[in-house]
Amino acid sequence: MRTDYCGELRKEHIGATVTLYGWVDRRRDHGGVIFLDLRDRSGIVQIVSDPQRTPDSYNEANTLRNEYVIKVTGRVSQRPEESLNPRIPTGEVEIYADQIELLNAVRKQLPFQVSTAETDPVREDLRLKYRYLDLRRERMAQNLLLRHQVVKAMRRYLEDVENFVEVETPVLTRSTPEGARDYLVPSRVNPSEWFALPQSPQLFKQLLMVSGFDRYYQIARCFRDEDLRADRQPEFTQLDMEMSFMSQEQIIELNEKLVGYIFKTVKGIELQLPFPRLTYVEAMERYGSDKPDTRYGLELVNVSDIVKDCGFKVFRDAVGSGGIVKILPIPDGDAISNVRIKPGGDIFKEANEAGAKGLAYIRVRDDGEIDTIGAIKDNLSAEQKQEILRRTNAKPGCLLLFGAGDTTTVNKTLDRLRQFTAREFKLIDPDKINLLWITDFPMFEWNADEKRLEALHHPFTAPHPDDLQDLKTARAQAYDLVFNGFEVGGGSLRIYQREIQEQVFEAIGLSPEEAKNKFGFLLEAFEYGTPPHGGIAYGLDRLVMLLANEESIRDVIAFPKTQQARCLLTDAPSGVDAKQLKELHVTSTYKPKS
Amino acid sequence: MRTDYCGELRKEHIGATVTLYGWVDRRRDHGGVIFLDLRDRSGIVQIVSDPQRTPDSYNEANTLRNEYVIKVTGRVSQRPEESLNPRIPTGEVEIYADQIELLNAVRKQLPFQVSTAETDPVREDLRLKYRYLDLRRERMAQNLLLRHQVVKAMRRYLEDVENFVEVETPVLTRSTPEGARDYLVPSRVNPSEWFALPQSPQLFKQLLMVSGFDRYYQIARCFRDEDLRADRQPEFTQLDMEMSFMSQEQIIELNEKLVGYIFKTVKGIELQLPFPRLTYVEAMERYGSDKPDTRYGLELVNVSDIVKDCGFKVFRDAVGSGGIVKILPIPDGDAISNVRIKPGGDIFKEANEAGAKGLAYIRVRDDGEIDTIGAIKDNLSAEQKQEILRRTNAKPGCLLLFGAGDTTTVNKTLDRLRQFTAREFKLIDPDKINLLWITDFPMFEWNADEKRLEALHHPFTAPHPDDLQDLKTARAQAYDLVFNGFEVGGGSLRIYQREIQEQVFEAIGLSPEEAKNKFGFLLEAFEYGTPPHGGIAYGLDRLVMLLANEESIRDVIAFPKTQQARCLLTDAPSGVDAKQLKELHVTSTYKPKS
Repeated sequence: MRTDYCGELRKEHIGATVTLYGWVDRRRDHGGVIFLDLRDRSGIVQIVSDPQRTPDSYNEANTLRNEYVIKVTGRVSQRPEESLNPRIPTGEVEIYADQIELLNAVRKQLPFQVSTAETDPVREDLRLKYRYLDLRRERMAQNLLLRHQVVKAMRRYLEDVENFVEVETPVLTRSTPEGARDYLVPSRVNPSEWFALPQSPQLFKQLLMVSGFDRYYQIARCFRDEDLRADRQPEFTQLDMEMSFMSQEQIIELNEKLVGYIFKTVKGIELQLPFPRLTYVEAMERYGSDKPDTRYGLELVNVSDIVKDCGFKVFRDAVGSGGIVKILPIPDGDAISNVRIKPGGDIFKEANEAGAKGLAYIRVRDDGEIDTIGAIKDNLSAEQKQEILRRTNAKPGCLLLFGAGDTTTVNKTLDRLRQFTAREFKLIDPDKINLLWITDFPMFEWNADEKRLEALHHPFTAPHPDDLQDLKTARAQAYDLVFNGFEVGGGSLRIYQREIQEQVFEAIGLSPEEAKNKFGFLLEAFEYGTPPHGGIAYGLDRLVMLLANEESIRDVIAFPKTQQARCLLTDAPSGVDAKQLKELHVTSTYKPKS
Repeated sequence: MRTDYCGELRKEHIGATVTLYGWVDRRRDHGGVIFLDLRDRSGIVQIVSDPQRTPDSYNEANTLRNEYVIKVTGRVSQRPEESLNPRIPTGEVEIYADQIELLNAVRKQLPFQVSTAETDPVREDLRLKYRYLDLRRERMAQNLLLRHQVVKAMRRYLEDVENFVEVETPVLTRSTPEGARDYLVPSRVNPSEWFALPQSPQLFKQLLMVSGFDRYYQIARCFRDEDLRADRQPEFTQLDMEMSFMSQEQIIELNEKLVGYIFKTVKGIELQLPFPRLTYVEAMERYGSDKPDTRYGLELVNVSDIVKDCGFKVFRDAVGSGGIVKILPIPDGDAISNVRIKPGGDIFKEANEAGAKGLAYIRVRDDGEIDTIGAIKDNLSAEQKQEILRRTNAKPGCLLLFGAGDTTTVNKTLDRLRQFTAREFKLIDPDKINLLWITDFPMFEWNADEKRLEALHHPFTAPHPDDLQDLKTARAQAYDLVFNGFEVGGGSLRIYQREIQEQVFEAIGLSPEEAKNKFGFLLEAFEYGTPPHGGIAYGLDRLVMLLANEESIRDVIAFPKTQQARCLLTDAPSGVDAKQLKELHVTSTYKPKS
């Protein structure tokens, strides 16, 4: 029976006889003496098998190879001075192996090395196919342990400090697509009917508030059949919370304490509370984004009022047709050549991919003069030039990049250029942690494709009480938590009155019949004594990714899917038996192109 | 802002001004003074609104009805001697309401009363349709809180005492039906391919052991598209655990401590460890069941050897054709009339539904004589009679019920009659808690429909090392935990060698191609250093049901489905938009009968 974990042996254990289990991380033969790095979940310890001192284990040790599974019994000894290894916690000791028992061998060539000593990158498709080997690697094992610590901290805080109750909500539920597509599940018992996998437990958690649960949480699996994007997964996990009888301020305060507790517990970092806040309007104005990374400056400057009547047609028309002209001022902009800003250049390409058709610029020279294309230079008055330089606080050497056009495109373009510039100039301190709330979102945004208003968060979000006169332009009582430029949490107060809910459904173009058909049970629930309530949900995968300093959520998920929504390990999805489909009364209509 | 929860106010609070939120549980008007029972998650407290003492709240109080949501601010006062209520924890105090604010009214007739004072049963379909009201009722709220406590205790023990790591495994995975049907999910991105929802995380948890996670747990949602049975749900929750490098004994010991911790924490009950054990063979012999309720006796007695050559053809043939003859002895059997045992009687019906064609019996009389049908009486020798009475320890007044035929049917029949009798004679002490392990299950059982061996647990269960010579008759290293006659946990050591796994697949009739196609990734994983491992899974719904003294798992699930696999609240499953199905490249083939 195991007496100890490998990684926990220290000087205090010297003299003890221990039994360890684990994997051969590396095996070295130093002149007839075999050294094994034995690895388990806790770390590595050095095993020594010496034909003189431990003859019983030597023959076995001699046959071992990397990743063999063994049981070792031996004595903990002080390492000789010259072989102390300060880089590992067990570096002062080694185990003289009295007995080594082989529990399982490796029978095939490993697709890649898993040793902790191995730092070479491995192709992701190989890592995903042999995920069980990939998870043996220290970085991945640590990521999943961190994930466990984060979830544990969330649970402990919510249960022990804030009196939340965990309630499980259904995974097989009703399809009410709004935004993303649902995953559907055919019902065998009720043929031609379908379950949907939940995009979030939103309606159920609201109903739990109607039930009086007061404070609910769940680490909930959610599902969205989205078009493939860089860092999304078909299934993802959120910390889902809902509370009754609390104001937005109280909910935000509770959540700041929760986040503070997580950082303190898993990273030992004391966050300063409260977190800064920006309204949506201010965030869009200053950063062109509702999830700005505020670890660095590079704030945008709106110059619409300065250029609205200027001679440069692009600027004048942008403002004239209801759009804006904004500037991203880059202090040491001389490091960026004109070639990069002009068509064909990488910075131009960034702007272009964000929707901008052109990329105007001004360079500020030593004498306060400007350097730009003639069409701008000739069409700005001295006063306009001066006001632009004053407002952007532009010193000589500064590069001003212009966005001009409809507000959405300008913001999207300059947000992208701002982030690009920050990376280019290495303005981001990787140790910096920046958390901020974005508040006062608009209730709706315009969906140009479907020509209708769409809920910016979701249609259960409560409008600001001051804005009830015109819901279409109302602010929502919604709040997002942004962590280093990523949205990690989003929440709102919810509607709890039938009339307002019906008005919101109407605003997003849902007919009374559709509303009743899809959400009738919620509307009805509002009539049986529904408390004021609100909540929030955190994207767990993304939060852990940021805490682990990873760049992909796949690196903090045990068995993720590829961007093509496939599991390379089990090869899911797959074809199924015709009999299964027959029982479900469904069939595929797919005709492969020949 | 809330200062207190209703149910937590005590004498110590007298004099304090409190702000409470909650629902009007009941409203009474006593000669112009209004009494409200205000209810929140924590319980009830009495609010008083008196036109003399609290004129400001009186008008509001007067308009309130049951289940209105209100905010109350008032002073905690001592109740007068004559209105002390020792039945509720807040029964010594009441709140004089300075202010009452109506937060939300009830606009419709309640489909049923939810007051804690209400004990009338409500039809289950109504309860499920208005689940948000049903969950306000004390019993249901307590059940869900108990469920939370149970899960919390599990997590704390496994994390804090036993060093387990929680890992999430996929919900969208590969179809590998074995036993029950899979729920399937069409893939939009990979047309004509399907995901399946997991029947358990079995393969993933084994792969986590291959990864070196050493000790894994998860509160996992599982899915089985089973034929409708009394107390099953399409989705259910299990505590899923897996451990490396542990023997069956060590796993059982750890789990007894876990279960002990749960009982101690949520019920305050100190269980005696270790739990008793029965082998599968012994359990079947003595109780006719592999999940016997051992809170009472009524053990079965095998008399095959006594009657195998007797003149009564039914008994003789049963043994002669490889079956058995067993007796359920009922000590005070005179209370059961012959009418009930004979065709048309309720006990005969029980036996018949379990598969028995007839139900022979013997009654023991005062003088040691027996009373039975002529065919038995005339065909048993005096020695046979004596031996039967001796072996069953039958005293006068005892009724012996016989099962004769194939072993499975006899056991099934007498198990059912044994349980029936225990209920009839009220032999079950409802306060008694009986936990026992069943061990040494057979690896396989014969599936007569498919004419093949089938894994009794699942095909990843390790055979007993002494029985490797003939896998078909081998015992498994499997263990079930039985709680008052219900299987609440089942586990086993797992196969971790490719050759043995392949032999087991072969035994259950899986061709090498099928095995490779479905489980190739597992077979391959066994070749890269897989540790010996084993685990267990607990049915959370059933465990909580038993701890809550409920008779249906639906009463411990927040939003359960009916036996027809429907959610009456959201009306799932439902029809979906043709557009959704088109995008998924699927269609229903169901033709309703006209």
